[in-house]
Amino acid sequence: MKAFLDQNFLLNTEEARTLYHEAAKDCPIIDYHCHLNPREIWEDIRYENITQVWLGGDHYKWRLMRSAGVPEKYITGDASDYEKFLKYAEVLGKAIGNPLYHWSHLELRRYFGYEGILNKNTADEVWKLANEKLASDGFTSRGLIMQSNVDTICTTDDPVDNLEYHEKLAADKTFPVTVLPAWRPDKAMNLEKETWTDYIAQLSQVSGVKIDSFAALMQALHSRLDFFAAHQCTLSDHALNYVMYAPASEEKVEEIFAARLAGKLPSAEEEAIFKFAFMNCMAEEYTKRNWVMQLHYGCRRDNNPPMFKKLGPDTGFDCVDNSAPSTQTAAFLGHLEENGRLPKTILYSLNTNDNSAIDTILGCFQNDRAVGRIQHGSAWWFDDHFDGMMDQMKSLGNRGYLAGFVGMLTDSRSFLSYPRHEYFRRILCRLFGEWVEEGFYPEDMDTLKEIVKGICYGNARNYFNFAKKEI
Amino acid sequence: MKAFLDQNFLLNTEEARTLYHEAAKDCPIIDYHCHLNPREIWEDIRYENITQVWLGGDHYKWRLMRSAGVPEKYITGDASDYEKFLKYAEVLGKAIGNPLYHWSHLELRRYFGYEGILNKNTADEVWKLANEKLASDGFTSRGLIMQSNVDTICTTDDPVDNLEYHEKLAADKTFPVTVLPAWRPDKAMNLEKETWTDYIAQLSQVSGVKIDSFAALMQALHSRLDFFAAHQCTLSDHALNYVMYAPASEEKVEEIFAARLAGKLPSAEEEAIFKFAFMNCMAEEYTKRNWVMQLHYGCRRDNNPPMFKKLGPDTGFDCVDNSAPSTQTAAFLGHLEENGRLPKTILYSLNTNDNSAIDTILGCFQNDRAVGRIQHGSAWWFDDHFDGMMDQMKSLGNRGYLAGFVGMLTDSRSFLSYPRHEYFRRILCRLFGEWVEEGFYPEDMDTLKEIVKGICYGNARNYFNFAKKEI
Amino acid sequence: MKAFLDQNFLLNTEEARTLYHEAAKDCPIIDYHCHLNPREIWEDIRYENITQVWLGGDHYKWRLMRSAGVPEKYITGDASDYEKFLKYAEVLGKAIGNPLYHWSHLELRRYFGYEGILNKNTADEVWKLANEKLASDGFTSRGLIMQSNVDTICTTDDPVDNLEYHEKLAADKTFPVTVLPAWRPDKAMNLEKETWTDYIAQLSQVSGVKIDSFAALMQALHSRLDFFAAHQCTLSDHALNYVMYAPASEEKVEEIFAARLAGKLPSAEEEAIFKFAFMNCMAEEYTKRNWVMQLHYGCRRDNNPPMFKKLGPDTGFDCVDNSAPSTQTAAFLGHLEENGRLPKTILYSLNTNDNSAIDTILGCFQNDRAVGRIQHGSAWWFDDHFDGMMDQMKSLGNRGYLAGFVGMLTDSRSFLSYPRHEYFRRILCRLFGEWVEEGFYPEDMDTLKEIVKGICYGNARNYFNFAKKEI
Repeated sequence: MKAFLDQNFLLNTEEARTLYHEAAKDCPIIDYHCHLNPREIWEDIRYENITQVWLGGDHYKWRLMRSAGVPEKYITGDASDYEKFLKYAEVLGKAIGNPLYHWSHLELRRYFGYEGILNKNTADEVWKLANEKLASDGFTSRGLIMQSNVDTICTTDDPVDNLEYHEKLAADKTFPVTVLPAWRPDKAMNLEKETWTDYIAQLSQVSGVKIDSFAALMQALHSRLDFFAAHQCTLSDHALNYVMYAPASEEKVEEIFAARLAGKLPSAEEEAIFKFAFMNCMAEEYTKRNWVMQLHYGCRRDNNPPMFKKLGPDTGFDCVDNSAPSTQTAAFLGHLEENGRLPKTILYSLNTNDNSAIDTILGCFQNDRAVGRIQHGSAWWFDDHFDGMMDQMKSLGNRGYLAGFVGMLTDSRSFLSYPRHEYFRRILCRLFGEWVEEGFYPEDMDTLKEIVKGICYGNARNYFNFAKKEI
Repeated sequence: MKAFLDQNFLLNTEEARTLYHEAAKDCPIIDYHCHLNPREIWEDIRYENITQVWLGGDHYKWRLMRSAGVPEKYITGDASDYEKFLKYAEVLGKAIGNPLYHWSHLELRRYFGYEGILNKNTADEVWKLANEKLASDGFTSRGLIMQSNVDTICTTDDPVDNLEYHEKLAADKTFPVTVLPAWRPDKAMNLEKETWTDYIAQLSQVSGVKIDSFAALMQALHSRLDFFAAHQCTLSDHALNYVMYAPASEEKVEEIFAARLAGKLPSAEEEAIFKFAFMNCMAEEYTKRNWVMQLHYGCRRDNNPPMFKKLGPDTGFDCVDNSAPSTQTAAFLGHLEENGRLPKTILYSLNTNDNSAIDTILGCFQNDRAVGRIQHGSAWWFDDHFDGMMDQMKSLGNRGYLAGFVGMLTDSRSFLSYPRHEYFRRILCRLFGEWVEEGFYPEDMDTLKEIVKGICYGNARNYFNFAKKEI
Repeated sequence: MKAFLDQNFLLNTEEARTLYHEAAKDCPIIDYHCHLNPREIWEDIRYENITQVWLGGDHYKWRLMRSAGVPEKYITGDASDYEKFLKYAEVLGKAIGNPLYHWSHLELRRYFGYEGILNKNTADEVWKLANEKLASDGFTSRGLIMQSNVDTICTTDDPVDNLEYHEKLAADKTFPVTVLPAWRPDKAMNLEKETWTDYIAQLSQVSGVKIDSFAALMQALHSRLDFFAAHQCTLSDHALNYVMYAPASEEKVEEIFAARLAGKLPSAEEEAIFKFAFMNCMAEEYTKRNWVMQLHYGCRRDNNPPMFKKLGPDTGFDCVDNSAPSTQTAAFLGHLEENGRLPKTILYSLNTNDNSAIDTILGCFQNDRAVGRIQHGSAWWFDDHFDGMMDQMKSLGNRGYLAGFVGMLTDSRSFLSYPRHEYFRRILCRLFGEWVEEGFYPEDMDTLKEIVKGICYGNARNYFNFAKKEI
């Protein structure tokens, strides 16, 4: 029996241990997709207690607590931070099978040096230990990042953002980590939302472009793309229900735009036409600028209306949308390629059933513009657990070139989430170790280490071409 | 090598063996979903031979025999019971990989004490042994239930049922097992069927409500709900193609109802509107009464027209329907929640690909009304084998709170099917044992036993709140 | 640790080793579905170098190279054969997880006796060794087939084909392998393609039937079916997006046909109606003749427009289509069965998520016309790797009668691809060995060997009823 979460956690073969400890462990982290707040990095904030840093905004943990029947008072309500922590500890103790069990304990070990098990009996001890540590040096936001061997962070930013804190961080030579913006224009695309017109007004103001047509919207966004590019952005991100293919004439698109501006919400068909046109124009710009396009899909958001009214988005009420037709994804990429507009692209679906479709779509658009020009994004959100990551990597291996994979990201709002990279790396090394043990791949440790280092760090460095902060 | 089906069948770790033998094995069975005939329990029936009790109504076995090329004569035809048994034995002997291989042998061991292998060579021996046993004490319907440590049975009952045998069983102090009805109003909902109007006439008569409108249909069902509640029913069950979201005005629903009553079959859109309205009203009633709502979907029934004409429904000609949009399931539950009508709910899909959608939908509606207020039902029908159960539990663990799971049910028509609970429990303990061995969860046997007992018995007891028979 | 690809490759239990070496290994190969060119068999062609035989037409390898960022010049371009081989060797060396890693090395071992690892360092050595061998006796197309213990080959042939080389091969008593045509009338069905009218003209000419109606099209095809039957064909194959159910009147079908002949492309609905009618008529003919119908679906082809223009079809730009509704597949088969038109059928989907739908559909149409009358085809194309084959066999075992499975096919264009049968057989024996080791099936080696031999050879022999070449 293996000890719980010891130094060889997940590393069940000699080869896996060698690969992890000699190749993976010390690779710097390129966290190319997260939701950290750049202001909080700039201000080098400190947390009063573990509840604030751990449970403050983490809707993964909230869902788990609700699933175990914990009243909302102890989740997002007015219970004290201590009470909330106790409830989480109690639930976590029985959360067998859930990745939070591993992530939480990895975080306790790596940041707080706590080697025990968190549950209702140990909650008190952990509360005290963690809070003491949080009050000590090296436990500010920057301290936590520095501890974690992070090389590059990409945040998620709206086109109207002034990137003030990115600018400050870039200028601050005391902080060696590169913090870059990523362009996420969802609000400009989602014309089916009530709030769209307000957003367009805001974008108008920020860009100085009067947005009275689809063409003008694009012009405004181009200006903001230039602004982001001037802040070293080379990465975009889109949240889609599915990757749609719905070509129509420019006139039709302008018609839909005009009707929406006049207050008429689009039909499902019009929505698809508009979004397809939007994505086409965006992809063209990314191609011109050699940016990477991330497409996240397979998610339905805000499914609990009363809780949405109470807590807003990103509070733990999203689910898998299983209706993404691979034919439209393929047709969209094919359309871009035909028109010279297909940038480097990463496809992520929240639905693991899409793995084989994604991995076979990739193969249709690979060429020498990059190793793994089209990527299958790492297992994500509801899927970034042991089984989900294994499935994603096996599927990519079976149907593509796993050695070219750009690897893990945290997708997180927390400064404590970097052990997810460790988790991923251990799983990667485990998989390779098992393959060698089984005789599926030769025991060529040099090549294996080279591949592991690529997936943990080198591939992302080559693929994204991120600017490196000069100190 | 492990011996076939010995006492440690499926228990491949020390921890699994401890958990099974010390925590799982002796838990009473709450079989909250089955298709036993309450009359046959009341009458304490006896079977002449093993073919009658084993092959008489078991379309799982029929399918296997047809797949192996056995003529229908030996399945549902006029061959003798002995001949039918011989054919089954012959096919079973080569049915490697099929759960019937395990179930059948578990049943032979547990009920008939037969420790060998059933195949064409041993068929004769087993035929004699089993038939002798069936003639002895303790092998009536009640005897088989009593042997199996069953605590509670929920049958599947139509709203027009008079529950005569449930009443008799409840009054019979000599039989300690609680037998409860479950409410299954499919026939009232399926207005696309030719037989719907006949059924509505019958329901009219039984309820004493003239059903000339949708509102009157609901009134009739309310009266029958009261009747079922008076017989301690707290559980409903619905078979759906998919969980639909199709809101429309009351007028529209009444229009569809009136047209159907006048003989006009509904369009697909009208069918969805009607069923959505129907489910809404039912869910409201379940919420008022604190019942549990079971939604079974992902099944297409009666796919072989000539065999359906010959043998009718539930004879082995159903398949997976892979077209359940998770967005509609989520929207339906969200609609109920918004209107204060979402009862405790169990979602089951026959399509294992729906696992991740279901497990993420659950998380959107959990709260403190129950631990695991919304449940992912146990792997079911074509999926209640080793791989299917493992997948369901891993998916639930990865995305939710596995410790709150209400566990297994037989879904069976046979008095010999309780070893399916044993099968499930062994798989559960195996999974936990592997996780401990791998270092994925600490070797905290007390907590593990507590969780195992919960999944095998305690969670269902707490969740369903079944009346306990007073003796 | 197991040595890479040694004689016990994939055979991780004693039982697996016994089953493979004593039952599976020496079974002749019935390759009932491939894309070999019968002319190349007849002409007994020889290859100049390993690039020609290995990389000349293998779009699996091309995709892998593109995924690794290799310029097209080294794939289908004007680089030398030597340069192309070097590039492939370099990419293969790092293609961990891809089945090409196994297939390529199996082929190097079995045909060229090369026991090392192919990568950039060994490329030169392998190039020389393989090319020497290719120049020696026994390395012509026939020689490679003979070396591989092949019993029967079915090629893939168009209704307009004159089967000249099949005729010659049948008459040639010096070549003992049975080479049969298989009927693939896709071009006659795909009326949505621009090239359809040209094809119809060609079919008109070959059949001598003036094709001015759907009925006439069927008449022309009947005449070609007779011609194929006269050449011992008993097998058909259809590539479908999905298996559709779209019944309509004969008049409607003729209308669609007439409009198309007049140059009007069909709507999606009309396309489905036409194809459904087409498949109905074909199935009727297959039933009359006791042919087997293969339905391949779940594929979207030619997704990269610029590369399609440059290289044409079957060059590595296809992907999984995930939109096959199981309800329509079931309805189509039910419709055929109702009308006495359902032949023996093999269902293959490129989408592994369809496994459970397929395996439950099978069960609805099994009877005593054949063991496994309806088959779940072997894991195919993007899925014929370790995981894909395991999933297909487990799903078939869980939901059907695995012992009746007709087993593997190459689906290949290469004379070196027979080790894929070896790969499949090893995986099959591994699966059975694991089941025995786990105590899931008794250690009854006689029965196990019988089942293994059936799946490797005997079942296909019984099911297809192929003519055996008389020497």
